[in-house]
Amino acid sequence: MKDMVQKLAIVGAGMIGASWAALGSAHGVAVSAYDPNPEAEARFLSHVERARTQLAELGLTGDGAVSFSTDLAAALDGAGFVQENGPENEAVKRRLLAEIDALLPPGAIIASSTSALVRSAIVADCERPERIVVAHPFNPPHLVPLVEIVGADVEVVARAADFYRALGRRPVVLNREMPGHIANRLASALYREAVHLVEQGVASVADIDAALCNGPGLRWALMGPHMTYHLGGGEGGISGYLAHLGPSQVRRWQSLGNPSLDAEVQAKIVAGVAEEAGGRSIAELELRRDEGLLALLKARTLVSD
Amino acid sequence: MKDMVQKLAIVGAGMIGASWAALGSAHGVAVSAYDPNPEAEARFLSHVERARTQLAELGLTGDGAVSFSTDLAAALDGAGFVQENGPENEAVKRRLLAEIDALLPPGAIIASSTSALVRSAIVADCERPERIVVAHPFNPPHLVPLVEIVGADVEVVARAADFYRALGRRPVVLNREMPGHIANRLASALYREAVHLVEQGVASVADIDAALCNGPGLRWALMGPHMTYHLGGGEGGISGYLAHLGPSQVRRWQSLGNPSLDAEVQAKIVAGVAEEAGGRSIAELELRRDEGLLALLKARTLVSD
Repeated sequence: MKDMVQKLAIVGAGMIGASWAALGSAHGVAVSAYDPNPEAEARFLSHVERARTQLAELGLTGDGAVSFSTDLAAALDGAGFVQENGPENEAVKRRLLAEIDALLPPGAIIASSTSALVRSAIVADCERPERIVVAHPFNPPHLVPLVEIVGADVEVVARAADFYRALGRRPVVLNREMPGHIANRLASALYREAVHLVEQGVASVADIDAALCNGPGLRWALMGPHMTYHLGGGEGGISGYLAHLGPSQVRRWQSLGNPSLDAEVQAKIVAGVAEEAGGRSIAELELRRDEGLLALLKARTLVSD
Repeated sequence: MKDMVQKLAIVGAGMIGASWAALGSAHGVAVSAYDPNPEAEARFLSHVERARTQLAELGLTGDGAVSFSTDLAAALDGAGFVQENGPENEAVKRRLLAEIDALLPPGAIIASSTSALVRSAIVADCERPERIVVAHPFNPPHLVPLVEIVGADVEVVARAADFYRALGRRPVVLNREMPGHIANRLASALYREAVHLVEQGVASVADIDAALCNGPGLRWALMGPHMTYHLGGGEGGISGYLAHLGPSQVRRWQSLGNPSLDAEVQAKIVAGVAEEAGGRSIAELELRRDEGLLALLKARTLVSD
C-alpha cells in the first residue's frame, strides 16, 4: 500500500489483541499495545510469540517491534492505526473509543474488533466518529483472513480495507450496519438448526459436527453458499437452481427448527461436546485448530483463483 | 473391512453415479453401472476417468473394472452393494427401489443417494425394506467425505457404514429420518440468512460468499459449530459459552431474517453470482472447486487427529 501504516496501536491486550499484534509485527509494522492490567503483559507477549511462530510457517517473517504499556496515551503515541479489542460491553467500549479519539490526531484511523455491538452505538461519544470503523475479525485473527468492516466515511473505509489487505486479510465492507455483521449471522442461523437437531435427538453432537466439517463445511472453505448452489444447479447454474429447486429450498426453510437453549438442551450439548473432545483440553484443541488452519491456508494458496 | 464388497452396482449413471463409480474403482471394487439411456454411457465413462485421475492424486490407485449396461438385471448381477442415484422424484425412486429389491438376493444392501426424500416414503413398495438405507453424499461424492445414513435395521446400517468407511468416507448415522437429513438442513438454515442479507442490501453476493469462506467456513472445514463455540468460550469452554453468550445467541436467532425468494431477490442473486463468477464457466468453477477440495483433503491428512 502507498501509505503503509508505520505503527499499529493495540488497545486491549487479550487473545484477540495479541493475535492482531503478531499479524502486524509479522508484516513489519511496529506495534504498541495497551492494557490497563499490568499482569496482562506476560501472557500477551507469549501469545504474540506463539502466533508469530505460526505466521513464520506461512512465510511471514517481518519483525516489527512489539511493546506493551499500561498508559493509553503512551501506547497511542505516533500510531497511524488503532485496533481496539476491549470488553464487549457497550458502555465500556463507548467510553474507551471516546478516550482514544480524544488522544489521537485526526489522520489516524480507529477500528473496533467488536463482534456483537453496532458501530452507531459505540461511536456515540466520539468527537470524530467518521474516522472510526468496526473491523471485526474471526478467531484467531492472525490466521482467519476475514475482516468485516462497517464505517460511515467512504475514504476512511477504503483506507482501512487497504491496511487489512496489506496485512494479508480479506476485508468485506458492509453497506450498512447489522447486529452480528455478516458471518456471525450466517453462523448463528446454522447453529440454530444444529441445536434443533440435538434437541430432536437426530444425531449426537459429535456427529452433527462431523456432518458439517466433512460435508458443506469443507466446500465452504473454498466458496460461499451462492456459488455452491451455482455449481449445484447443473448446466443452468444458479438461475436453474433457483427456478427448479427454489421452491423446495423455501419449503425447507419453513421446516427448520426454533429450539430453546434451556437447561436440558444445554446439558445435552455440554455432554456431547465433552464426548467429542474425548479428554483433549481446550489448549490441545486450539493447537489442533491452528495447525489445521495453517495447513488449509497453505493449501488454498496452491489453488488457482 | 472383513467382508469387503466385491462388486458395487451403480443405478443411475449421471454425475453422482459416476463419482460413486470412480470412488469404488479407485478402492479396487468392481463397478457395474446401469442407466436406461444408452447415450449416458460415454459421458459416464469420461466422468469416471476424470474423477479417477483426481483420486490418484490422493494416492487412491486401485483399478476395479467399470462396466455400463442399459439392462438393470445385468448390472445388478453379483452385486453385494447397490448405490441408487435416480431422479429426485418420489414416485420414480419408489418404483426403482422396488425393482432393484425384487431383482437382488436378500444379503445385498441397497443405498439411495436421495438428498430431498425420506427413507420411509421411498421404500414403501419394497418387499425387504430393512435392507434399504438412505446414504446421502455431498457433491462431488468421490471427494467430499460425508455420507449421511438413515436405516431401519441396526445391522444393515452398521454394514453400510463399514462399506463407506472402507471407501474412505465419513459415515454419519441419523437416529431417525429428517427431510434434508443433517447437513442440507444446516446449509439451508445458513442460506436463508445469506438470502436475507442480499435482500436487505447489506453486502454483495460475492462479499457474502467471501465472508463465509474466509471466516467461519474455513474453520468449519476442520470442526463443527459446537466444537467451534467450545473454543470460543475461553477457559470455560462450551458451558462457559452457553452460560455467558447463550442469551445473546438466542437474541440473534430472533433477529434472523425470513426472506422470500421472489423474482426480484432471484434476479439480485443471479446478477450477483454472475459478477462473482467473473466470466468463468461452470466447468471452470467446478475444476477449481475440485482442485481446492483435493488440496484441502491433502492438507487435512497432515493434521493430527
